[in-house]
Amino acid sequence: MDGRPIGVFDSGLGGLTAVHALWRILPEEDLIYFGDTARVPYGGRSRETLLQYARQDVRFLRTFDLKAILIACGTVTTTSLPVLQAENDLPMVGVVEPACRRALSVTRKKRIGMIATQASVRSGAYEAALRRLDPEVEVICEPCPLFVPLVEAGRIRRGDVVIETVAREYLEPLRATGIDTLILGCTHYPLLTDIIGDIMGPEVTLVSAGEESAFELKRMLTAGDMRASGERQGTTAFYVSDRTEDFERIASTFLQEDLRCMARRIDIEQY
Amino acid sequence: MDGRPIGVFDSGLGGLTAVHALWRILPEEDLIYFGDTARVPYGGRSRETLLQYARQDVRFLRTFDLKAILIACGTVTTTSLPVLQAENDLPMVGVVEPACRRALSVTRKKRIGMIATQASVRSGAYEAALRRLDPEVEVICEPCPLFVPLVEAGRIRRGDVVIETVAREYLEPLRATGIDTLILGCTHYPLLTDIIGDIMGPEVTLVSAGEESAFELKRMLTAGDMRASGERQGTTAFYVSDRTEDFERIASTFLQEDLRCMARRIDIEQY
Repeated sequence: MDGRPIGVFDSGLGGLTAVHALWRILPEEDLIYFGDTARVPYGGRSRETLLQYARQDVRFLRTFDLKAILIACGTVTTTSLPVLQAENDLPMVGVVEPACRRALSVTRKKRIGMIATQASVRSGAYEAALRRLDPEVEVICEPCPLFVPLVEAGRIRRGDVVIETVAREYLEPLRATGIDTLILGCTHYPLLTDIIGDIMGPEVTLVSAGEESAFELKRMLTAGDMRASGERQGTTAFYVSDRTEDFERIASTFLQEDLRCMARRIDIEQY
Repeated sequence: MDGRPIGVFDSGLGGLTAVHALWRILPEEDLIYFGDTARVPYGGRSRETLLQYARQDVRFLRTFDLKAILIACGTVTTTSLPVLQAENDLPMVGVVEPACRRALSVTRKKRIGMIATQASVRSGAYEAALRRLDPEVEVICEPCPLFVPLVEAGRIRRGDVVIETVAREYLEPLRATGIDTLILGCTHYPLLTDIIGDIMGPEVTLVSAGEESAFELKRMLTAGDMRASGERQGTTAFYVSDRTEDFERIASTFLQEDLRCMARRIDIEQY
């Protein structure tokens, strides 16, 4: 048993969808969340910039005595996870491998789609992981650069012509390729599950990368006898790198419940 | 006469619309442009973060022997210009005052609208500048947070339901207030002139903050006998803080002409 907290970080507040999954899957665990809201979005940045940002994010989280880190950011996972794992002596789970395993377990046609930010698609990490796990799989990737700003503007509901038009432009060519499984490779995208599901149709299974990594973390902690006591209710502390004023409102969107908590602000450039 | 170059900077590539204006208004001047593409967008960030970024941007530009700096970023101007002016011994023009002067010279009803990023609106800088110049003026501000990502996604044309829907939501309440002049307080927005003009109608005069600051800079250089020789054709050097691969394509959008030039990349965190 290990009662130390789990660190979770993302470029911004999208990673809160992974916190939402962790609350359901590991309700007894304490969480420390860091959202790098001063430097969001990571999606369009270069590999070197991303690695530098990710190292600072991990250094901040490790000022706490953590037992594991969940990287709730597709962009960081795809560009920096192996380096971060090599540099840090604690378990780190990203959002790529778990989603790939899940996608391969549900696909019947071995034809899998993946949507994410520009940087994640450009990295080729999802394709590489899927092919490593199954060399015969066919993978079709599509960057969806407007999904993050649209989600952050709250445009996530059915009937909104803006999100529906953008989503159709991104997704209809993907659907036409005949995929039967679609990985949501960015932690913002689970908020668009209704919109994406409507366009892809019931024959396409959606796999949420954030949720799968929460399941992976649970397996890993269980195998290592590192779970917290199941008799307690975990707490979550929130940190951000920019203004905290709108945190409660925006976090409530991502966590899909009313949140009564404050975020504390830290200067990430110091780490 | 002063043949030294003029520095121009922005959070990203939106400030290239000011370069476009400078090419027309001061064609003989050499320009050094810096776009902080590794940290774009500035719009949602805090005052302290913005001041730190702006100081680094100025320090990088001042590694060249400049005669003046044009801050082609509404967000930096509204939050940091007075501090930067106090810290630097060279003329600096922002995008607020020149646009406010122009707006006051064209308004008949003394009812002026202003659209910009969240941070610019929150700063209250346009309202304060307009009221300082004319205490009787009425100012209505509206943040348009999705305009920057939509412009960067190339959604700037008439008939695009996405940009038109978003623009109508932002602008129709503004038009209903009876303004007769609208300041485009973000250097991305001139690319939406057609869309914005269609919604606001012919009775509303649009004022481009970037263009007005180019005119202001011309007046300032002329008054100080600091213009370059009129017989020459100026050159422009482009620097960015993140990957340069897409620069030519994106810059061509902002500069409204085919561009055959490379940007060089620098590490802004070192300044």
